[in-house]
Amino acid sequence: MKKKVLAIIMWSIVWQGVAQSEDENRLRSIFDTSLTKGKAYDWLNYLSNQIGGRLSGSVEAQLAVEYTKAQLDSLGLDRVWLQPVKVPKWVRGTPEFAFVETSPGVTTNVPICALGGSVATPLGGLKANVVEVQGIDELKNLGEERITGKIVFFNRPMDPSLINTFQAYSGCVDQRYAGALEAAQYGAVGVIVRSLSLRLDDFPHTGSMSYGDLPVNQRIPAAAISTKGAQLLSTTLKLNPETKFYFKQNCKQLEDVDSFNVIGEITGTTYPDEVLLVGGHLDSWDLGDGAHDDGAGCVQSMEVLRLLKNTGYRPQRTIRAVLFMNEENGLRGGNEYAKVAKTNQEKHVFALESDSGGFTPRGFSFDCSEANLQKVGQWKTLFAPYLIHFFEKGYSGADIRPLKQEGMVLAGLRPDSQRYFDHHHAANDTFEHVNKRELELGAAAMASLVYLFDKYGVVSD
Amino acid sequence: MKKKVLAIIMWSIVWQGVAQSEDENRLRSIFDTSLTKGKAYDWLNYLSNQIGGRLSGSVEAQLAVEYTKAQLDSLGLDRVWLQPVKVPKWVRGTPEFAFVETSPGVTTNVPICALGGSVATPLGGLKANVVEVQGIDELKNLGEERITGKIVFFNRPMDPSLINTFQAYSGCVDQRYAGALEAAQYGAVGVIVRSLSLRLDDFPHTGSMSYGDLPVNQRIPAAAISTKGAQLLSTTLKLNPETKFYFKQNCKQLEDVDSFNVIGEITGTTYPDEVLLVGGHLDSWDLGDGAHDDGAGCVQSMEVLRLLKNTGYRPQRTIRAVLFMNEENGLRGGNEYAKVAKTNQEKHVFALESDSGGFTPRGFSFDCSEANLQKVGQWKTLFAPYLIHFFEKGYSGADIRPLKQEGMVLAGLRPDSQRYFDHHHAANDTFEHVNKRELELGAAAMASLVYLFDKYGVVSD
Repeated sequence: MKKKVLAIIMWSIVWQGVAQSEDENRLRSIFDTSLTKGKAYDWLNYLSNQIGGRLSGSVEAQLAVEYTKAQLDSLGLDRVWLQPVKVPKWVRGTPEFAFVETSPGVTTNVPICALGGSVATPLGGLKANVVEVQGIDELKNLGEERITGKIVFFNRPMDPSLINTFQAYSGCVDQRYAGALEAAQYGAVGVIVRSLSLRLDDFPHTGSMSYGDLPVNQRIPAAAISTKGAQLLSTTLKLNPETKFYFKQNCKQLEDVDSFNVIGEITGTTYPDEVLLVGGHLDSWDLGDGAHDDGAGCVQSMEVLRLLKNTGYRPQRTIRAVLFMNEENGLRGGNEYAKVAKTNQEKHVFALESDSGGFTPRGFSFDCSEANLQKVGQWKTLFAPYLIHFFEKGYSGADIRPLKQEGMVLAGLRPDSQRYFDHHHAANDTFEHVNKRELELGAAAMASLVYLFDKYGVVSD
Repeated sequence: MKKKVLAIIMWSIVWQGVAQSEDENRLRSIFDTSLTKGKAYDWLNYLSNQIGGRLSGSVEAQLAVEYTKAQLDSLGLDRVWLQPVKVPKWVRGTPEFAFVETSPGVTTNVPICALGGSVATPLGGLKANVVEVQGIDELKNLGEERITGKIVFFNRPMDPSLINTFQAYSGCVDQRYAGALEAAQYGAVGVIVRSLSLRLDDFPHTGSMSYGDLPVNQRIPAAAISTKGAQLLSTTLKLNPETKFYFKQNCKQLEDVDSFNVIGEITGTTYPDEVLLVGGHLDSWDLGDGAHDDGAGCVQSMEVLRLLKNTGYRPQRTIRAVLFMNEENGLRGGNEYAKVAKTNQEKHVFALESDSGGFTPRGFSFDCSEANLQKVGQWKTLFAPYLIHFFEKGYSGADIRPLKQEGMVLAGLRPDSQRYFDHHHAANDTFEHVNKRELELGAAAMASLVYLFDKYGVVSD
């Protein structure tokens, strides 16, 4: 009996050793392939420089659907298809224009851009006195009397002391998303929001906003001002509270149009009905070329399939890459995908989103059970040679969240976040700000996590 | 007796808790100050954009000495001084010029730059057939007959599969440093070296080279070619082995000149004779403005003193920032500093160098005893909130290495290395490629480590 126990223990040690070294080799091979024969950077180059910004409903978005489908087709996957989805179509119109007016005729131009979903100003633009607030609470405290007829200037900056810049973003994004809705109810005629960036520069950063249930005739135009513009406006207001602000934009919400999620998969050998999803979103804002947000996540997701295939791995489960449409201003793609998955009774056991930029990967955050988190903890040493060290509970991604179900693992790639908001939703979210190696390391990290979850499965509670 | 033991245990637990939270607060305060009221970025802006590249012996190097001394003077330190050191003075001369000639008159210009320390070509330039090799071994195998009268083209690329790009650099730098010395001995007339970069682009990367003891009349000119130029030359040679290469450079080694290390310190309250050093090198190559290499390390070192002072910390030991002169092509500053320290019987217990770029800090590598490494290991949790996770045995820095002594802790800041060699020693090592937050996080990480070693001391074996 003792001998038998000993034999089992020995066998298990040997087996663990073999499995460990098999996994080490697989990860090495995935990283080597990504760094020496990667395709992600070339794909991103095309998406960014041959197509450009891919706002939902635009010609560019459609070109991106066609291009990524063709590229997935070329990989020899088991299945590639387009999933139809209706998306909103908002157009920016002619370039926005704004100035600060300290006295009649004494003006300084400042860089602004309409927020996504905003209505236009009147044809000749809008000029009014300005009331600066640090947030929605202050707006409420000021009340209708102080706000009626004015432009509300939301100027709360992102907190630079937060190490995770996404936290700093979360602490301010309410101004952009709901600022106009709130201000309109106190009689404001327009809203200007400080750009959500930690840099002082001249780039205005757009992003989604919502009027909620506000009747159409009560909606007021909303624009972002660059951080330097915000500093200028704030300083000017301190010197002269009677300063006026003028802005003009002719953006417009059109009818919904047809679009697609782009999907490719490698069918599992043993459990073809269990799906491991990896994804990003194909749409982007229109000011830059959407290289970091989220061209990077799309090409990394495509690369995950290519890396698994090219390193000769035959997955037990179905590995699916999904390029979601319309994350930025509607989440229609993510919602539609989840709806179809439910209708078809597809079993998603794992989903990983990359939507935090193409920077050096630091790890992953997980929305899952303790048991699965512990499982991930055992893989830390496998990731250590690649300096991937962050494995914590946390947010996964907007597109995959509608899939959430008991027992499932949702995860988000966590790249270094320091530079992300320098580019996010602005004209400088462009290809040259993506480093090839950083992008490739991210794709390899994602493929490695997918491989491990495919091989060892998810603990279904 | 039991009660007494229990009391001691209780006390020790409480004390540890207090100390732990005191340290947590100190680090928080250091990081907050660096990220919200930092000076490093402004200093670097001046060094980069008002002064520029600071090659040893240049006017710019002298301006940098004066500027950094004045800035240290303004911090209210206990002592600021200049330490004289003679440095070599090599000058690049007029811009270099090179082309690939496939047949007489059919030429393609390629970007090159002279290696630091190289001799000039003849006045009219140098044209010869080319022999491409992957390294010094291959050169030796080819032998004198195949090499005499030719230009040797060292084209071994950095290995992109290595995660730590400094390792990839180490694997190739012998071509640059000793290529000309070796090739000259086989009768070569010149040397062209593939730039040490992982990117394909048009920037040639300079760097130091040495002729060793080779008599002056046997020295041959050596230049770096951009990675794209190297690809072009290599491809052309495969198509036509008779391809000729022409290059012209008129660089020159002049007499040594006077220069300085710049030093500032906060004198320790309890152990003023024990020195904790933090440093970077003030000289840089001349092609860019030396923002990453090593303007970043200098301003971070200065910032360490300012952060400790401005967060109200009174160090027990003397904390000294040293901006070393001439790391790039002579190491005279580092050697002189160590010599003077020895003469004056100064006791250095700790030295930390930042010379790997101003990127997001990932941790530190340590050249020290096991006991000290274990001590550092206990501080890992303190650094975790700042995503600083790498604490390993390894290299410290070129300037502080001459100080090495038994019982001392030598350390190097380890920032993310992916982008470093895109800029290293090239015209694009410029200020706009340094991210403010990444630089500031590095300074805070350094100040935190210095604080902990000051507070808890170094284990002297």
